[in-house]
Amino acid sequence: MKLRDIADRLGCRLEGDADVEITGVASLQQAVGGELTFVANARYLSQLASTKASAVILGRTKGEQPALPCAVLWTDDPYTAFAGAVELFSRATRPLPGIDPSSRIASGATVGAGVSIGALVAIGPGASVGARTIIYPHVVVGPDARIGDDCVIHSNVSIRERVVVGNRVVLQDGVVLGSDGYGFARQKDGTHRKIPQHADVVIEDDVEIGANSTVDRPAIGETRIRAGTKIDNLVHIAHGVSVGKRVLIAGQSGVAGSTTIGDDVMVAGQSGIAGHVDVGAGVKIGAKSAVLQSVDAGAFVTGSPAFDHVEWKKASVIFKALPSLKKKIDELEAKIAELEEKLR
Amino acid sequence: MKLRDIADRLGCRLEGDADVEITGVASLQQAVGGELTFVANARYLSQLASTKASAVILGRTKGEQPALPCAVLWTDDPYTAFAGAVELFSRATRPLPGIDPSSRIASGATVGAGVSIGALVAIGPGASVGARTIIYPHVVVGPDARIGDDCVIHSNVSIRERVVVGNRVVLQDGVVLGSDGYGFARQKDGTHRKIPQHADVVIEDDVEIGANSTVDRPAIGETRIRAGTKIDNLVHIAHGVSVGKRVLIAGQSGVAGSTTIGDDVMVAGQSGIAGHVDVGAGVKIGAKSAVLQSVDAGAFVTGSPAFDHVEWKKASVIFKALPSLKKKIDELEAKIAELEEKLR
Amino acid sequence: MKLRDIADRLGCRLEGDADVEITGVASLQQAVGGELTFVANARYLSQLASTKASAVILGRTKGEQPALPCAVLWTDDPYTAFAGAVELFSRATRPLPGIDPSSRIASGATVGAGVSIGALVAIGPGASVGARTIIYPHVVVGPDARIGDDCVIHSNVSIRERVVVGNRVVLQDGVVLGSDGYGFARQKDGTHRKIPQHADVVIEDDVEIGANSTVDRPAIGETRIRAGTKIDNLVHIAHGVSVGKRVLIAGQSGVAGSTTIGDDVMVAGQSGIAGHVDVGAGVKIGAKSAVLQSVDAGAFVTGSPAFDHVEWKKASVIFKALPSLKKKIDELEAKIAELEEKLR
Repeated sequence: MKLRDIADRLGCRLEGDADVEITGVASLQQAVGGELTFVANARYLSQLASTKASAVILGRTKGEQPALPCAVLWTDDPYTAFAGAVELFSRATRPLPGIDPSSRIASGATVGAGVSIGALVAIGPGASVGARTIIYPHVVVGPDARIGDDCVIHSNVSIRERVVVGNRVVLQDGVVLGSDGYGFARQKDGTHRKIPQHADVVIEDDVEIGANSTVDRPAIGETRIRAGTKIDNLVHIAHGVSVGKRVLIAGQSGVAGSTTIGDDVMVAGQSGIAGHVDVGAGVKIGAKSAVLQSVDAGAFVTGSPAFDHVEWKKASVIFKALPSLKKKIDELEAKIAELEEKLR
Repeated sequence: MKLRDIADRLGCRLEGDADVEITGVASLQQAVGGELTFVANARYLSQLASTKASAVILGRTKGEQPALPCAVLWTDDPYTAFAGAVELFSRATRPLPGIDPSSRIASGATVGAGVSIGALVAIGPGASVGARTIIYPHVVVGPDARIGDDCVIHSNVSIRERVVVGNRVVLQDGVVLGSDGYGFARQKDGTHRKIPQHADVVIEDDVEIGANSTVDRPAIGETRIRAGTKIDNLVHIAHGVSVGKRVLIAGQSGVAGSTTIGDDVMVAGQSGIAGHVDVGAGVKIGAKSAVLQSVDAGAFVTGSPAFDHVEWKKASVIFKALPSLKKKIDELEAKIAELEEKLR
Repeated sequence: MKLRDIADRLGCRLEGDADVEITGVASLQQAVGGELTFVANARYLSQLASTKASAVILGRTKGEQPALPCAVLWTDDPYTAFAGAVELFSRATRPLPGIDPSSRIASGATVGAGVSIGALVAIGPGASVGARTIIYPHVVVGPDARIGDDCVIHSNVSIRERVVVGNRVVLQDGVVLGSDGYGFARQKDGTHRKIPQHADVVIEDDVEIGANSTVDRPAIGETRIRAGTKIDNLVHIAHGVSVGKRVLIAGQSGVAGSTTIGDDVMVAGQSGIAGHVDVGAGVKIGAKSAVLQSVDAGAFVTGSPAFDHVEWKKASVIFKALPSLKKKIDELEAKIAELEEKLR
């Protein structure tokens, strides 16, 4: 594809040789001649000089203009232009529509037009699968589960009974939706009685959930993940949690039972949020934090337990220097003793 | 169901309209007319006034009596009464007994009376499945594995060769039992030689294990989870670990190799316990803790590394205030310098 | 097997009764008469006196010679000799070569000599499986994936399209290779546009990956795990990560996108490494650490955020004592006020 055509498709302003033939997209360091690269983060600008790429997607940068070793696609939003470029060269192939004969579709299940259902899929009675949805091999769809249109369900996913999945939802391999919540009532003899967990799980439109993540169902009410939210791998969403719209939850984070997460929240990796708390809209949670209390909308918290991010950074710097701080305190103590001695 | 009948079934004392028809159970905030709600935690009592529920399960409360907006089911143990109420209205349906013809039951495997085996299940030679056990689609049971009576094994579970599972065990979707422990011997050339991990895994009666949790087998001895223990999602139990009776381990926690956990221990979410340590009976471990040393029975520890919970709370409060503490130390230093100057 | 023969096979020097019949390997505490045990860590030497084992594998120890209650197999490397002993008594059985008729092997897939393919396996078009590789039930191998010789792929593993797996690789149950990386471009309206993730994943020779761990594919470039690396359960390797040779990554750790990990790195459990950082060769990372910046080769870091391990240990000791430190500061403040009063 000629660079001129790519610039057109991505809506970028082209500077340099419009006729160069582009064969793919690669990183600044790995790109070779004929490839397109990008700089989405100003701190990588210094690597631009040494790239072997034939063209680079570049945002307007404050400060000094970098030396340009190749053609440039100028844009306001280099990361989105990069996404578009990757799409142009994507090797993705859609499985052909059809149902593999080894799959088990229960009588009473309904399947929309143009679906692709792979080998050894099991779909339970009363379940429905929307139009053009792709279901890869070894997926299990439980009784009366409802899956919308244009979804992509990767291998070994479990969608349990009565779970509702919206349109354009992407579930990576091994995801579990609708497993029983962790709810037990302690008995007088110390044993734990299971509270039946049979209520609803709803995954709204345009949600994506990463590999081997799990979303539990509650005893009452519902667990809901709202439209446009993106969840990474190995994340745990407990029973009765409500996750807002356009939320990002990075890998190995967890949300305990009955907690509410507002719209546009961002949760960095390996964080945990306690049960029965409210995380306001637009909150940011730093990596490996433990959020034990409700957080006001718009706040940025970090730490275990989590508090204001800027304060946490300051406290962490002092934590690192605690040995020298303690030494100083010991020295002050000695000086005071000396002063006391003089004044005795 | 009339409230009178529910009170009878749950053993509660009824105050209010005994004839009201109850249609389901819901939370204080979500309940509508005709529904039953509950207050298991005194801090939600203030929400009681505004509930739209027709009846509430309530424990005896110390202090002021709340205003009662609806009928009440009085009980000593509201959480257990709630569990019973949820059961009364449960939509759970048991799959019919029988073996789906798409399942692969090896010759030499034995299957008890009244079992339900779903689509595309694979059961290996020499394996046995007890009476009335339910096995959902896509479960793999390895050679010579033994599963007891009345178990519920959800989809995509792997039960490896020779693993022993007791009676009334519940395994949520994606659980792995008997994967190889992480045991390697470092060689002189820096490579790692695998120590074969072929010893036993035993899951005793009434254990429940959450979605995508894993229990490894050891090289020698056994990994054992004792009766009545309940484990949440995405938990890692390493090779040779011994977990006591009635233990609770919350989501995304992990226990490293050869560690022993006593009876009635409670582990909050995202905690880790190092290998080769002993955690005494009744120990509580706070959220996101790292237990690096043995813990005496009955202790409550938190932190990374973990120590006494109360001390940790105090230290955490001071951690948060370290910037102002450091400022104070700097001020004291200046004052001392001044005093020294005066006395020179 | 006679102890004499075991000593020969393991290359140990025998002290004691060479004719004793050995029936298995067990731990110091659990071994009974007729069993072989071992001490790989000097801190367990004190338990040696009370073992009931008939023989013990022992390394040369500094300091006092322990009393020997049984025959000894002396060696320079007791952990490796233990690995060999476990192998001698291993109950492992290899499934017979052959392809279970319930498996779905797409036309155009190729399968090497001597492979064992279990029940209900799905292998996509264009995929290849090397000689003598074992694939357990319910594994999914995507289109054009390539698996080398002598691999062991346990149940419910997903190997996605075009993933390349080397020789002698071991994947425990539920592993996912090649799931889409977590890559989205934030749009002006606050929604997140998916950046297609279709690039490569390469798992080199002699790698082992633990149960339910996940390895994502990137949008461009590759995710690569180099030869001899061993990864534990529930580990998250994000898109574009490069993991060196002979690396050890313990359970529930995670590595964020585009990070590079050098050879011979050791990562303890529940640690996280941020995206776009370099971890040098031979680095050690302590348990539950958050590595937020690049780490020089050979360093040992711990903490959240991580810094030098020795400094972290010192700081942690002081953290624990912060309440008493604060009390001392308050006392010093009072003394200074007194001194100031005297000098007024």
